[in-house]
Amino acid sequence: MKKKAIAMVSGGIDSATLLAYLIDKNYEVEVLSFEYGQKNTFELERAKDLVKNYEIKVHKIIKLSLDQIGGSALTDNIEVPKNSYNKNYDDKDIPVTYVPARNTIFLSYALAWGEVRKINNIFFGAHIVDYSNYPDCRPEYISSYEKMANLATEMGINGNRISIEAPFVKMSKADIIKIGINLGVDYSKTISCYDPSADGKSCGMCDACIIRLDGFAKNNMRDPIEYQ
Amino acid sequence: MKKKAIAMVSGGIDSATLLAYLIDKNYEVEVLSFEYGQKNTFELERAKDLVKNYEIKVHKIIKLSLDQIGGSALTDNIEVPKNSYNKNYDDKDIPVTYVPARNTIFLSYALAWGEVRKINNIFFGAHIVDYSNYPDCRPEYISSYEKMANLATEMGINGNRISIEAPFVKMSKADIIKIGINLGVDYSKTISCYDPSADGKSCGMCDACIIRLDGFAKNNMRDPIEYQ
Repeated sequence: MKKKAIAMVSGGIDSATLLAYLIDKNYEVEVLSFEYGQKNTFELERAKDLVKNYEIKVHKIIKLSLDQIGGSALTDNIEVPKNSYNKNYDDKDIPVTYVPARNTIFLSYALAWGEVRKINNIFFGAHIVDYSNYPDCRPEYISSYEKMANLATEMGINGNRISIEAPFVKMSKADIIKIGINLGVDYSKTISCYDPSADGKSCGMCDACIIRLDGFAKNNMRDPIEYQ
Repeated sequence: MKKKAIAMVSGGIDSATLLAYLIDKNYEVEVLSFEYGQKNTFELERAKDLVKNYEIKVHKIIKLSLDQIGGSALTDNIEVPKNSYNKNYDDKDIPVTYVPARNTIFLSYALAWGEVRKINNIFFGAHIVDYSNYPDCRPEYISSYEKMANLATEMGINGNRISIEAPFVKMSKADIIKIGINLGVDYSKTISCYDPSADGKSCGMCDACIIRLDGFAKNNMRDPIEYQ
């Protein structure tokens, strides 16, 4: 019997690659996505395309409203910074695109859903190399979350050890794209932009677009999606 | 200047006592409640009464739908057990009123809200003595959550240490009621029932009612709320 896993899939490059990676590792994957009040509503459509493409049987979309919390350019009326990507951020400089405690909230839903589905392997595509000091993408955060998860849940205390893994956490976007290319990921079915146009075209100027374009360039490839 | 704190208030005995306790300790308290798809919709009304009573300035009610997740008698069409309260549960026997990862989800929203409000003290009323092995009410869970929270957030990594406290965690319901009585808590403004009637009267038979009634009895008092 195949091992089961929950994969958190947003519709971006990391989660598309994650899906291909887990299928290649012979997991039976259930996909979890979040409709959280993000300005980029095209993400979810891309997540659905990916799910269809990989013939995933269970795709759970959890609705929540992080716009109730606010505090981020991804959910609020705060302008998304353009043409300002800087790999040399100061250690403590956290960009306005950080959504307060977002990964902690998402992982907590994944944990709850894992309890219900009896699946103790949870994967997500977080990585820190290009990611501008988001505190909740760091390896030490992820391992601390995993410890907590094993104390928080019925599965954890009953000996079904919960594993929370971000297999790409120490990779760059270029490394991730390389893995995806080898696994045949169709990146035209992904979107990364923090601020796409009304018809779903990426801006090409926000941090997410710049990191993405750079990742393809480093693989000597053209990004297959449309830009404004 | 008063220290600020976020208190998670459900409208039950523990959170009513917590509110009085924090005000007595001279905290400026902001209250956080959750409308999560619970069958007991009277809880939130009691939380609002308490907030009014203590003249709390900020009461944030976060809407989320744990009924999307399911797996609990508190949110689903699963019958709430009646007349079956048993203090001698086996260690690993978790009741159907456990909501998968509920405290983890709630604390994660509190963490996000703390980031936005710049408040690093988060309190909740969890306690384990009477509470039938809910894994996410145990002291080791809470301290593990606190460690994770300090790695997860801007406040945490920038040196504003986040504190997650459940001051009553090792107390019984009777102990908590005793504290509340000394602080003048009006327990008629609370509700604990897992399955109240349509007009808001408590059933008197679920675990929550039995623990509550027992707690008042041990203080030689009559519970001031109405039962069916």
